[in-house]
Amino acid sequence: MSELPKTPLLDTVDTPHDLRKLKPSELRQLADELRAETISAVGTTGGHLGSGLGVVELTVAIHYVFDTPADRLVWDVGHQCYPHKILTGRRDRIRTLRQGGGLSGFTKRSESEYDPFGAAHSSTSISAALGFAVANKLAGTPGRGIAVIGDGAMSAGMAYEAMNNAEQAGNRLIVILNDNDMSIAPPVGGLSSYLARIVSSREFLSVRDVLKRLARKLPGPLHKAARKTDEYARGLAMGGTLFEELGFYYVGPIDGHDMDQLVPVLENVRDAAEGPCLIHVVTQKGKGYAPAENSADKYHGVQKFDVITGAQAKAPPGPPSYQNVFGETLAKLAESDERICAITAAMPGGTGVDKFAKAHPDRAFDVGIAEQHAVTFAAGLAAQGMRPFCAIYSTFLQRAYDQVVHDVAIQNLPVRFAIDRAGLVGADGATHAGSFDVTYLATLPNFVVMAPADEAELVHMTKTAVEHDSGPIAIRYPRGNGTGVALPTDPHVLEIGKGRVVREGKTVAILSLGTRLGEALKAADALEAKGLSTTVADLRFAKPLDEAMIRRLLATHEVAVTIEENAVGGLGAHVLTLASDAGLIDAGLKLRTMRLPDRFQDQDRPEAQYDEAGLNAPHIVDTVLKALRWNESEVGATA
Amino acid sequence: MSELPKTPLLDTVDTPHDLRKLKPSELRQLADELRAETISAVGTTGGHLGSGLGVVELTVAIHYVFDTPADRLVWDVGHQCYPHKILTGRRDRIRTLRQGGGLSGFTKRSESEYDPFGAAHSSTSISAALGFAVANKLAGTPGRGIAVIGDGAMSAGMAYEAMNNAEQAGNRLIVILNDNDMSIAPPVGGLSSYLARIVSSREFLSVRDVLKRLARKLPGPLHKAARKTDEYARGLAMGGTLFEELGFYYVGPIDGHDMDQLVPVLENVRDAAEGPCLIHVVTQKGKGYAPAENSADKYHGVQKFDVITGAQAKAPPGPPSYQNVFGETLAKLAESDERICAITAAMPGGTGVDKFAKAHPDRAFDVGIAEQHAVTFAAGLAAQGMRPFCAIYSTFLQRAYDQVVHDVAIQNLPVRFAIDRAGLVGADGATHAGSFDVTYLATLPNFVVMAPADEAELVHMTKTAVEHDSGPIAIRYPRGNGTGVALPTDPHVLEIGKGRVVREGKTVAILSLGTRLGEALKAADALEAKGLSTTVADLRFAKPLDEAMIRRLLATHEVAVTIEENAVGGLGAHVLTLASDAGLIDAGLKLRTMRLPDRFQDQDRPEAQYDEAGLNAPHIVDTVLKALRWNESEVGATA
Repeated sequence: MSELPKTPLLDTVDTPHDLRKLKPSELRQLADELRAETISAVGTTGGHLGSGLGVVELTVAIHYVFDTPADRLVWDVGHQCYPHKILTGRRDRIRTLRQGGGLSGFTKRSESEYDPFGAAHSSTSISAALGFAVANKLAGTPGRGIAVIGDGAMSAGMAYEAMNNAEQAGNRLIVILNDNDMSIAPPVGGLSSYLARIVSSREFLSVRDVLKRLARKLPGPLHKAARKTDEYARGLAMGGTLFEELGFYYVGPIDGHDMDQLVPVLENVRDAAEGPCLIHVVTQKGKGYAPAENSADKYHGVQKFDVITGAQAKAPPGPPSYQNVFGETLAKLAESDERICAITAAMPGGTGVDKFAKAHPDRAFDVGIAEQHAVTFAAGLAAQGMRPFCAIYSTFLQRAYDQVVHDVAIQNLPVRFAIDRAGLVGADGATHAGSFDVTYLATLPNFVVMAPADEAELVHMTKTAVEHDSGPIAIRYPRGNGTGVALPTDPHVLEIGKGRVVREGKTVAILSLGTRLGEALKAADALEAKGLSTTVADLRFAKPLDEAMIRRLLATHEVAVTIEENAVGGLGAHVLTLASDAGLIDAGLKLRTMRLPDRFQDQDRPEAQYDEAGLNAPHIVDTVLKALRWNESEVGATA
Repeated sequence: MSELPKTPLLDTVDTPHDLRKLKPSELRQLADELRAETISAVGTTGGHLGSGLGVVELTVAIHYVFDTPADRLVWDVGHQCYPHKILTGRRDRIRTLRQGGGLSGFTKRSESEYDPFGAAHSSTSISAALGFAVANKLAGTPGRGIAVIGDGAMSAGMAYEAMNNAEQAGNRLIVILNDNDMSIAPPVGGLSSYLARIVSSREFLSVRDVLKRLARKLPGPLHKAARKTDEYARGLAMGGTLFEELGFYYVGPIDGHDMDQLVPVLENVRDAAEGPCLIHVVTQKGKGYAPAENSADKYHGVQKFDVITGAQAKAPPGPPSYQNVFGETLAKLAESDERICAITAAMPGGTGVDKFAKAHPDRAFDVGIAEQHAVTFAAGLAAQGMRPFCAIYSTFLQRAYDQVVHDVAIQNLPVRFAIDRAGLVGADGATHAGSFDVTYLATLPNFVVMAPADEAELVHMTKTAVEHDSGPIAIRYPRGNGTGVALPTDPHVLEIGKGRVVREGKTVAILSLGTRLGEALKAADALEAKGLSTTVADLRFAKPLDEAMIRRLLATHEVAVTIEENAVGGLGAHVLTLASDAGLIDAGLKLRTMRLPDRFQDQDRPEAQYDEAGLNAPHIVDTVLKALRWNESEVGATA
């Protein structure tokens, strides 16, 4: 572990109230110390680094100028908030970031009054800030809404919807566009090109420019004339008109690392703006830490690292990740099938679409943070005879649920969904868990919903999805590495709605969907050791269910347990519904459903999360034993 | 019934192939006949009229100029497509619009190859058209993607996401912005003001102007200079830069009712555009039919009417609609509670928020077609201590599912959801049915999900939601009129998670959620007549369930049936899960779940739809009888 940095000035600042006692001339040093402390902390814990380093000065300037927490500061996504956490009373816990029981890696309401709105998904900040601003306006109490949002997050429709409603806040809404020309991957699309044109066509705005601009908002005929002239000039310079056309007052671009520019500009906006204001701040992701600045991803997300060298701890060697197995399999299948294409919403690396894009650049589409468009675009491709794969994390597919229903399911179009990060995800916590997709997809007519038990199964399911032209089909699989099973060289098409019995027994049946299969097999060993002969089935399909197999297993075993990495309403509910529809429960049926608990779980190691969720082998054993004893009046003793 | 209009020219046109044989000089007459036929047809059936009348000329011009169906024409929302249906081989069925077994009131893939992409929800057209365009580009086959989208639909984030990706289509994407300054309600927001500024600041573009603009896209230094000059000019005139900044080539505004302008402009765009093109067409909703032009809503949606007078058939007098009961109740409660506010996404009338807005204009927010923003804005309001009600149709709330999960449920913020159009909705068909909300909401931790059995219950539930500050709460209720029950003058707060027994019996228990209660009571009568003493419970809450009551009813009755206006994964699944968790199924339990079927249902009268769904009283009786006979080996005989 590296030595802690020397931070004499930062040591005097526990909250923004302390910060505001400093002289403006001291802020540069404070920012430097804050940067050093951030680097040191993330070196210890791993986590998001590049984006936090990019907003160190901005974080100091905002808390210095604005009256937080009364002014409600909303960090979009929130993964850039580590410097903010250090300045808002959480420095003593900053080395617990993203650990079980520690600080969240994102903003979180329960952690601090300085986090008025939690986040982790992108592009929510303007809507939330508008809510704060309008509530205060209605109540006649002071307090602005301040959103800090990256240029990548601006590509999402939600941000646009919020901007389109900005006028409702009067001058209480301030949007700070943090333009680092980068989301996780390089940005795409028309908006990104537009921002690049602004930045390249102009010098940074000086404080004098800002004063002049804000002065124009004052009434009077003279200012009116000045305003008109200036608007012409702005039209010529291509600056900010997009935002002005949506009703914002645009100020920028500003150098986001220059304290001497940031503080007075923010002060002027605070004191003189008469309507919603957008401040365009240009920053550099990874700023001030050479290893980050020099890396391709600017240390967006890192393992623990050595602060001096920047060398990151290597993840232990292991089986390939599900995402890469998916990406590589699809790339290979696409060699002989020109209809296959792949769509990602700003997550080429995280979804494995980068592997596909490398082999088939013309057929890979990164649409930016735009899940809604991604799904309906894929539906259009499918309607024209392509075989599109939408590769989107489970939690982010929630962004496109109506498109899944309205454009894909109702039209029964063969869009393939590759749903990564299904189930619990570890350090990213509840906001990134994929807990609901089996429920929200399997309730839809026409859908096929699959979950592989391991990475070999994922290969077969990818092939199965390719060949499934009769309607929508989804594969959901977890974050992280596979089980190490050998990958099939000749992927085959699975029969839709057919599961497999992995281990044949007599008394207990465990019906598993997805990667709990390993725990189910462990549980079977433990049960056998107790003399309970156990069948383990890998259902493969949550919809359609393998009705014949399920009926057989329920009929021939004394107790049956379903298990899934999903909340209530998913596999277990569908199996129970089948059993009820068929009258199988009428004469008595010991059937239990194991699922994610009815609460949001904080970050931790995935194994620990599944333990907390009660979905590991010992919990399966326990559930089976309790069910078997239910009629023996012993349950009270063991419960 | 009015006499059919004389349509000699239209009679010669069955498909666009016939249309393209006409001389340009004949198109005006064709449009006039098409308008008359549209009015006549909708006079017979009722349906959407104003928006169709606004695009008569545009419909003729598009099919005349473009090579449909190879060029893929996607009508956004699709309720303006009646003239299109008449021109594309469906005139013989046009008087079956929106009737059971008849033509859909929207575009629909299964109806015609001229409907390459169905719709009904707004703002999907650009994404779909982009999919078509890109697929053709990849395959090297001809065919453009043409999206016709209203100015109201442009306020949705999804349209912006698609525009941001337009460059992927090259010149195969054409977006026609149909600007009638109106969605269902008057439009709101920055974009709307922007479009109004363009239109008011300019004359319509002439054909010569269009030629000049497109010529600028040709290479060569001369054109480059011309382009630069012209860009300056455009900047000054405020025209179209928003779209140009997103990568479109902007042409407009154009008079959308002038055939002599429309046809050559479209031809020039077809032949000369070198990149994605946005044509800004100004139309008048209700154009050419005086009663429509003169009405406030431009005959957006009408009952059957007399073509000569425009007089609409009056709906028979009946109980108040759920939406109005909600709106009026909330308005009244807000008189003594300043924290209550209401949010609608472009549906003030349809949700009853208009009633609230009339009484409390400062606390009513119409955010435009922007459900994502609506929900997170409400979350911001709630985080600042307000009591916000998001009034959104069930099917449209799907647009904001991630915001419901990420911004509301995870943060456990007390946003109130007033979910109209739950269950089957009649003439609007599958796209507007609210079939999934119980499933997709009740799977979320922290949520309370209620459904009133009648409008009096809705009053109590509205009051209950007002007072529920500990987390999110939803009320889901159907389209249409209540049951006629007396409305309570003193709304009271219901105990969360407590149902009520409406009728006490001994043998059969019917557990109802929502407005199937009437059918449940009818079924109880029929069962009693057969000697089966029947309990009917109104569960009120899908989450949390009234566990004590459900356990009691399951334990004391021979057979139990749940019924809900929702698909699999909702109430029935939760009751089964409760029964399984508690071991109640171990010793035998005759429990059945009645729910919407696993298919999308076409438009029809709601009663007929529920009959098809198997959710009326006779089906309940049938389900009970079958369950009771299950062990008597008689089921084969009656099934």
